[in-house]
Amino acid sequence: MKLAVVGATGLVGEQILNVIKERGFHFDELLLVASARSAGKKFTYDGKEYTVVTAEDAIAQKPDIAIFSAGGGTSLEYAPKFAEAGATVIDNSSAWRMDPSKKLIVPEVNAKSLTKEDKIIANPNCSTIQMIVAIGPLHEKYKIKRVVVSTYQSVTGSGKAAVDQLFAERAVSAGQEQEVNKVYPHTIDLNVLPHIDVFQDNGYTKEEMKMINETKKILEDDSVKVTATTVRIPTVGGHSESVNIEFENEFDEAELRQILADAPGIIIQDDPANNVYPMPLTSHNRDETFVGRIRRDETQEKTVNMWIVADNLRKGAATNTVQIAEYLVSAGLV
Amino acid sequence: MKLAVVGATGLVGEQILNVIKERGFHFDELLLVASARSAGKKFTYDGKEYTVVTAEDAIAQKPDIAIFSAGGGTSLEYAPKFAEAGATVIDNSSAWRMDPSKKLIVPEVNAKSLTKEDKIIANPNCSTIQMIVAIGPLHEKYKIKRVVVSTYQSVTGSGKAAVDQLFAERAVSAGQEQEVNKVYPHTIDLNVLPHIDVFQDNGYTKEEMKMINETKKILEDDSVKVTATTVRIPTVGGHSESVNIEFENEFDEAELRQILADAPGIIIQDDPANNVYPMPLTSHNRDETFVGRIRRDETQEKTVNMWIVADNLRKGAATNTVQIAEYLVSAGLV
Repeated sequence: MKLAVVGATGLVGEQILNVIKERGFHFDELLLVASARSAGKKFTYDGKEYTVVTAEDAIAQKPDIAIFSAGGGTSLEYAPKFAEAGATVIDNSSAWRMDPSKKLIVPEVNAKSLTKEDKIIANPNCSTIQMIVAIGPLHEKYKIKRVVVSTYQSVTGSGKAAVDQLFAERAVSAGQEQEVNKVYPHTIDLNVLPHIDVFQDNGYTKEEMKMINETKKILEDDSVKVTATTVRIPTVGGHSESVNIEFENEFDEAELRQILADAPGIIIQDDPANNVYPMPLTSHNRDETFVGRIRRDETQEKTVNMWIVADNLRKGAATNTVQIAEYLVSAGLV
Repeated sequence: MKLAVVGATGLVGEQILNVIKERGFHFDELLLVASARSAGKKFTYDGKEYTVVTAEDAIAQKPDIAIFSAGGGTSLEYAPKFAEAGATVIDNSSAWRMDPSKKLIVPEVNAKSLTKEDKIIANPNCSTIQMIVAIGPLHEKYKIKRVVVSTYQSVTGSGKAAVDQLFAERAVSAGQEQEVNKVYPHTIDLNVLPHIDVFQDNGYTKEEMKMINETKKILEDDSVKVTATTVRIPTVGGHSESVNIEFENEFDEAELRQILADAPGIIIQDDPANNVYPMPLTSHNRDETFVGRIRRDETQEKTVNMWIVADNLRKGAATNTVQIAEYLVSAGLV
């Protein structure tokens, strides 16, 4: 199996390579693809030296699977070209997510909908993925009516330059002289920005609309209502979500916990008496989604509160794409 | 007017003195009260030297108003003694908040309920106060049915030692050798703790139950339902809240904005196109509550999302107590 990783030199690309190695995802040949600017550079991965190639070079070598993490523009231009050359593309950008002809996959929940005809597969937004892992199995059992979600998102979601902004601001705050290059419109250190991605006419951000629309698409149920407030906070790695879920059907709390415990990809961390609950720091480099603070919402029937945390670069991006690739191979779709 | 500030040397006590000076709250005599350990120490305030006195000394001097910010134990023991000696006590601890014989006051919303008979007046919890300033006027107009709130709370809410923990952890993260004394059960730097105050049997924390119960009491309406998830994040000064509010009655968005704009103590910061929204950093040392991200929740009738920020040591504590004192004087109640 010939695998291409497009955008191999970015923050998510780096994690994709880590995840492939850690999970032992098998390939016979690996193509590391980046922009013309990076092409020709040497890159050591898993003890072997690779030369970074351009997208055109990679297409000519006809990979079986191409995992894209190079921004929407690159995906729009090159994903169809890789697909035409016979590759199944797993795209991590937002370019194809809401395209009705493309599937949006969280493997634990809807990988089984994939067929050989799916040549461009979309990876959902980071904040959507971890929520879906947790609420998907509950939707199946109790049918979700409405979700109110507020997020606590790490700066790694905005790429390397955002991490640099945070640490430069921390250095300045510690009295060092350091230039700060702003990715965000405001200081992020010791601050909170209720602003992720671009504002839309309806007052919601694109990030909020992604959570709303992608959830419906993945659960294949337009009746699932989501309202979201997405918020950037000064953490590095790990998104947290405070989620209030109203079901159509009544639930038993012990049963609900058991469903989550039995569901793939979830680890329950919910022992408040011992200060055990999901936190971004303990989600680092983990592929699972962590769920805790599970408690009945006493203000409304059939409603529960929970707290969901995952490493946004792993389950929220890299891991999910590699899991899709694993599924394609194991199901004989490539 | 003889004023006593009990707990003058703490983080909130310090802010109370700042706020008194800034707002020009008039007193003829000021007693700075602290524990026996601090008594006798000299303290310079507004260009004048004071000697810190014990609670017993202060009671003997019969102050007219005593603002308490010295923890629940001190309040339980000494507030009645100050009251017996003729003082009107404004208490910043949780000791008296839910006592049915004591009033819980957010001046903008319910100061008018105070009479000369109220000798111990409770100041609500920080996270409740800022929410009430914003939702109080909306409740009056549209009647609130249910609130879903998730908070983003600063470490200053846990006192000086918590601020020290955060900065010690930042120093360690920057490569310095520094001892870290933990106030929180986990690292707070670059982390998020969905845990404020003690967990109760129902899975909610005391902080969450405060938001739920204090809101009903201040609005004098047990039908107002609140469900809360309260969360500590690595910011220093300024609590943020993502609030979803369902009303009994339909609202017009322009009218709702006008109600907030006209309400006392509120500044609307809501110009997303220019990246204007409330943030903890811009709330520092401000007495107002900032409201933004106001938008209709499209998943449910009569429901709105908003983002509320205030300086938790100011409006969430010091400012609110001083405003109560100002009201007592202006209404001739002391």
